[in-house]
Amino acid sequence: MATKEDIAKFMAAAFPRNQFTIVDAQNKAATIRRRVTEDDIRPGGTVSGPTLMALADTALYVAIHSTIGITPHAVTSNLNINFLRRPSADKDIVAVCRLLKVGRSLVVGEVSLYSEGTDDPVAHVVGTYALPPSRSEQAQNT
Amino acid sequence: MATKEDIAKFMAAAFPRNQFTIVDAQNKAATIRRRVTEDDIRPGGTVSGPTLMALADTALYVAIHSTIGITPHAVTSNLNINFLRRPSADKDIVAVCRLLKVGRSLVVGEVSLYSEGTDDPVAHVVGTYALPPSRSEQAQNT
Amino acid sequence: MATKEDIAKFMAAAFPRNQFTIVDAQNKAATIRRRVTEDDIRPGGTVSGPTLMALADTALYVAIHSTIGITPHAVTSNLNINFLRRPSADKDIVAVCRLLKVGRSLVVGEVSLYSEGTDDPVAHVVGTYALPPSRSEQAQNT
Amino acid sequence: MATKEDIAKFMAAAFPRNQFTIVDAQNKAATIRRRVTEDDIRPGGTVSGPTLMALADTALYVAIHSTIGITPHAVTSNLNINFLRRPSADKDIVAVCRLLKVGRSLVVGEVSLYSEGTDDPVAHVVGTYALPPSRSEQAQNT
Repeated sequence: MATKEDIAKFMAAAFPRNQFTIVDAQNKAATIRRRVTEDDIRPGGTVSGPTLMALADTALYVAIHSTIGITPHAVTSNLNINFLRRPSADKDIVAVCRLLKVGRSLVVGEVSLYSEGTDDPVAHVVGTYALPPSRSEQAQNT
Repeated sequence: MATKEDIAKFMAAAFPRNQFTIVDAQNKAATIRRRVTEDDIRPGGTVSGPTLMALADTALYVAIHSTIGITPHAVTSNLNINFLRRPSADKDIVAVCRLLKVGRSLVVGEVSLYSEGTDDPVAHVVGTYALPPSRSEQAQNT
Repeated sequence: MATKEDIAKFMAAAFPRNQFTIVDAQNKAATIRRRVTEDDIRPGGTVSGPTLMALADTALYVAIHSTIGITPHAVTSNLNINFLRRPSADKDIVAVCRLLKVGRSLVVGEVSLYSEGTDDPVAHVVGTYALPPSRSEQAQNT
Repeated sequence: MATKEDIAKFMAAAFPRNQFTIVDAQNKAATIRRRVTEDDIRPGGTVSGPTLMALADTALYVAIHSTIGITPHAVTSNLNINFLRRPSADKDIVAVCRLLKVGRSLVVGEVSLYSEGTDDPVAHVVGTYALPPSRSEQAQNT
């Protein structure tokens, strides 16, 4: 219920160090992209695991905003990542997120991470966000 | 590389108590279905969590057989399940599996579980199977 | 806040098919044990994965009861299991659970599973239960 | 089989940007600590999730080195994190890792993360590392 532009504006203000681009943000889905910087690279010319985890976490957060409106106090409660292939150090990382459940207090989604332009994911994430209680109360009043 | 019929025959011989039907078995994908029995039902008219976990685990195993050939000694090393909605006690459970990575020693896949005829999954699983070393050796010789 | 005896009585009434013994139930901790039956055994003389998952899930449920009182409507939202070693088909399985967080709406705990009398766990589980909203309301009123 | 000093030297050379201190490194166990920097802080005065994930991942890597010797090519294959409490922005983060299984090709361990000086963990991680095949070959020759 928040547009791509609204979400981008909120994220830039709240997390100024978190550099990424929103490619698409729909109901229960979002795609974001991030340039790989020197800080993200690991020996052997690949991208660090925490870089991938962080981007997946952000993709879930963006998908929540685009689905139920900007929700700053949504917090990650669980994140499970499988590393599948070595990402390229010289390609952007793209995170494609799909929400599996949007509940009253929990949102569950999955994220496939790609080195841009390749078909096979470099990692796959399933994560859960806990929504703030105020949201549930609002929902009950609606 | 094994057909639906071959896999069904192998499973019936190796796991005679594991009742399920293979709906489809392709390269890196499988769909199976299972009737919900009285043993699977929990108070409140829903299906037990272990029933869902077991079916997802079987779907991954079937997808491995259909992708690399019958591999009896593949064993689950990790399984992560998110329960999303209450399954119906009076509908079959359908498990749709897609393999994300088929490596030399590890296979990773995801499974969406549905109460038959409904669009939203009741649970979502990501699992890892470890392949027996002999397979890697064979693969290297091929 | 519920005793071992209270929990055993509740479980026997609510889940008559779920055979297990409560060895210990304390604040934020529980240990349960289960005989391995013919139904649980897999080819090769080991115990099936779903048997282990089910016992870990039950151990979490028992620890919740012993910590906050009998809570029938607590439901598993996430369960992550790593299979570590082959369990013995001829030994009881013991599940040792410790709760890591008891929140207003979520409880997170870990479970180590053993073939009785051995030191190294056969599997390790981390699971999350969602507590029913009524409980939170009660807690807020207290 | 590698000492705390050896591991610290290896990590400083291989990952010069990864700032942390090894508090203890034993067989199947390691404790590391990390100062929280401005980059790690999230709005609301807490520590970002990716900071915690990265530290847990490093703790597992250090515990592998201290158990089987320096193994640069061990790579994370799965990581599951539960966020339990808000970490303090003004306290170091301490990661206490214990290996649950050291296999021929997979190592599984758990990590509890604390804001220094507090008893309740802020997060809990279970992770799997895949060991390079050369290691298995060496192990077989020993």
